[in-house]
Amino acid sequence: MLDYALLSALAAVIRTGSFERAAQQLHVTPSAVSQRVKLLEERLGTILVVRGSPCAGTPAGQRLCQHVEQVALLESELREELPGIRHAGPPVTVRIAVNADSLATWFVAAMAETRDCLFDLVIDDQEHSADWLRRGEVLAAVTSGAKPVQGCDSTPLGALRYVATASPEFVRRHFPGGVHAGSLAHAPCLTFDSKDRLQTLWTRQVFGAEIAPATHWLPSSQAFIDAALVGLGWGMNPEMLVADHLRTGRLVALVPDQPLDVPLFWQRSRIASSRLGDITRAVLRTAGAMLE
Amino acid sequence: MLDYALLSALAAVIRTGSFERAAQQLHVTPSAVSQRVKLLEERLGTILVVRGSPCAGTPAGQRLCQHVEQVALLESELREELPGIRHAGPPVTVRIAVNADSLATWFVAAMAETRDCLFDLVIDDQEHSADWLRRGEVLAAVTSGAKPVQGCDSTPLGALRYVATASPEFVRRHFPGGVHAGSLAHAPCLTFDSKDRLQTLWTRQVFGAEIAPATHWLPSSQAFIDAALVGLGWGMNPEMLVADHLRTGRLVALVPDQPLDVPLFWQRSRIASSRLGDITRAVLRTAGAMLE
Repeated sequence: MLDYALLSALAAVIRTGSFERAAQQLHVTPSAVSQRVKLLEERLGTILVVRGSPCAGTPAGQRLCQHVEQVALLESELREELPGIRHAGPPVTVRIAVNADSLATWFVAAMAETRDCLFDLVIDDQEHSADWLRRGEVLAAVTSGAKPVQGCDSTPLGALRYVATASPEFVRRHFPGGVHAGSLAHAPCLTFDSKDRLQTLWTRQVFGAEIAPATHWLPSSQAFIDAALVGLGWGMNPEMLVADHLRTGRLVALVPDQPLDVPLFWQRSRIASSRLGDITRAVLRTAGAMLE
Repeated sequence: MLDYALLSALAAVIRTGSFERAAQQLHVTPSAVSQRVKLLEERLGTILVVRGSPCAGTPAGQRLCQHVEQVALLESELREELPGIRHAGPPVTVRIAVNADSLATWFVAAMAETRDCLFDLVIDDQEHSADWLRRGEVLAAVTSGAKPVQGCDSTPLGALRYVATASPEFVRRHFPGGVHAGSLAHAPCLTFDSKDRLQTLWTRQVFGAEIAPATHWLPSSQAFIDAALVGLGWGMNPEMLVADHLRTGRLVALVPDQPLDVPLFWQRSRIASSRLGDITRAVLRTAGAMLE
């Protein structure tokens, strides 16, 4: 068996980003943490932590960190069946990849139903979140791909509905002759990051054409809405986040009754212990209530 | 002189993440974009784009991309002085590093005052945003460090005020005997990412001790507040974002009258054309009105 005292020290350094914080978490001295990580590196003959501010795991270090968390998950399951086993250390941490707009709309409500674990969330585009699962860096992911990643189960969650929105003043200024492929090509839009294809998907759905207008790059769901409100550009915003603004007229839909529905799936690793089962039930219940 | 037709194609591929979108932006065919990038790679004898989904720049490609954007900035300044020069291509894009909580509170209002450029925002912790400036990957940054990065000017913006907050139910459950170093060590907290030191700074300021409690990792300003509201943990939230919740009692301050003030600075590269001057004026005016 591996030496889990050493491995726990490594995981704490990589997760907290510092030897000092790892030491506090483990209730030992920083020099003890440092010695444990060094010993592990010597035994394995490879560097596991890139020392810096913050410290980061090398690929080998990251892989060991995942392993420690999987073992912790299995232990937490064991403790539920055998409550006599004394709980040692902090509650189990579950790493999940989720798209920013799910986190901004329905995902926190699902997290709230799962009280006895800690969440370590990674934010990535729904078309790329499955990559984290494929690389074994997360235990579960909210994805736009239905096809299960190897070793995973996939369940449909419903669709997150997006509305192409802008401020009324922006529409007056940039679309005096109406919203069409020609006018869209000259109005600045909002793009989350280089992975974000929602603008393209929507213009293809509505106008049968891909349009590449000038764009602001703005990697934040809330800033997307703030930027639309102040008239910096038009953007694809989750209906749940802009419903009030649409009702009060602070934002308007560029084309009425033409939302874009993005189907989402919950994919989770089949090392699926009962712990992941609790999260899965909460995610499916919340998504069922809140998605289309 | 370098060949700017080739360089523009390269920058468009790296910024949009795809040859197709770059082609649309430049109004040429994807194969023309591909030929230009290949030609540039042959001339320079090095790979500039990692083909993938999305495409990404190699370090050399990124560096050329920055150069193109700096030249575009200088050109836009020239066009202001010599309005007779015909404007060719999309408006100039300005890349800025900003901390997530500034973007969530006051930064969009500053962006709204600067209408004739596009923003490409990079989000990073205020203690690390200066690194982007140091590496030449952004033209300006909101930082917590006052000391100017080489080749940059630094101006104080005021302080962003944080309040340690949680839901009333969370406080009843985890702090029945009051909030002190002992009880804080056993209550789950919220941490943005491994660079986030605000919890530590606050507990040191108030209790003279660093505390390393169990934590959720949640890289989103809005999700931080949502998670506090549903009782997942306590967190350091910008006062501007939680003022309403504190007033209505949905959130409470863990320790009244003990905010944490984080001083912020506006650092910008001295290639500072008049264009960056406009942004600087808008940033200083908005920060002056909204920060402490």
